[in-house]
Amino acid sequence: MSDRISVGVVLFDGFELLDVFGPLEMFGQLPNHFELCLVAENGDIVASNQGPRSVLDFGFDSSPQFNMLLVPGGSGTRREVHNPELLEWLRSQADNAQYVTSVCTGSALLARAGLLDGRRATTNKAAFDWVTSQSDQVDWQKQARWVEDERFFTSSGVSAGMDMALALIAEITDLDTAKQVATWSEYEWHQNQDWDPFAAIHDLV
Amino acid sequence: MSDRISVGVVLFDGFELLDVFGPLEMFGQLPNHFELCLVAENGDIVASNQGPRSVLDFGFDSSPQFNMLLVPGGSGTRREVHNPELLEWLRSQADNAQYVTSVCTGSALLARAGLLDGRRATTNKAAFDWVTSQSDQVDWQKQARWVEDERFFTSSGVSAGMDMALALIAEITDLDTAKQVATWSEYEWHQNQDWDPFAAIHDLV
Repeated sequence: MSDRISVGVVLFDGFELLDVFGPLEMFGQLPNHFELCLVAENGDIVASNQGPRSVLDFGFDSSPQFNMLLVPGGSGTRREVHNPELLEWLRSQADNAQYVTSVCTGSALLARAGLLDGRRATTNKAAFDWVTSQSDQVDWQKQARWVEDERFFTSSGVSAGMDMALALIAEITDLDTAKQVATWSEYEWHQNQDWDPFAAIHDLV
Repeated sequence: MSDRISVGVVLFDGFELLDVFGPLEMFGQLPNHFELCLVAENGDIVASNQGPRSVLDFGFDSSPQFNMLLVPGGSGTRREVHNPELLEWLRSQADNAQYVTSVCTGSALLARAGLLDGRRATTNKAAFDWVTSQSDQVDWQKQARWVEDERFFTSSGVSAGMDMALALIAEITDLDTAKQVATWSEYEWHQNQDWDPFAAIHDLV
């Protein structure tokens, strides 16, 4: 592609809207730094968990190697953890990606693909038991807005993806740029990755 | 349609991703209360400001009367304030809608359609001068996360649409339901509509 970071967002029927479009709002404000692509197994349209449908840029067969993978959550993950084609595509991309990221229950897919083995990771606090049951090889973190383990970034539920995306922007560009993106979005960035009041709400701590 | 509130989201090339999918994440968690529809002047696909494309449910000619209108912002509003077909469609829908809402620079479109004449309204603080120049018949509010004036709800920039959507959910269902949606989204709801640190950042107050 180019010097820009290509972000390959893996979609499937029943993806959670904000898991995808929260981070893409943030990355998309910096078109000189990020190129956004929507990918799915096949077909040209995918329906979200909430109904609205997105047009794909690539199928698994035609996709280039991406610099960053972004795996959202949503009700569809309950089906996709049993989809060998999706898990194999994640593995094939992850080897050469600079960053492998997930939002919400998207980490269940990374875990089932074996990509989080021996790593620290987190997920949605409302679905913590289900996600963590997908792999006992992951050091699951009960309280975290997002977790960074080398090039693997996993966020907590839904809106946490925006905070993680801003952290990735800070790492890839610089902190001032990330703050500018947050301000332009009129978004109150939770810059501290330990901020997580939702863990206590769901009796995890 | 049904007893559900039908939400007609007006799209156009260059709509801002989070203006649309932030509120739809919130409404979409309550499928027994809200039905989500994407509408645009014509065609079947619309591209966002950030690139990702959405599939439309209706064109202006085929759309039913909606219970709620949601008008997003984005760079495309600079063009659409000069689009008589879009402004006329907004007027034709607004008469019989229970709620007329906008996010970010979407209020420029409502203002140009004359729908905010004599009403209090707000908009994106980064684009405040441009939006307010679209009509001198509106009582523009410089500091507000969102503004309610009877059935007209206008929010500040981008992520403010999520706070406004939760306020609409509280009004249409109840406060506990709105809080549950926020918690499930792991979203820190700014429930106070006067919370707006961005007005000062942009020297409006």
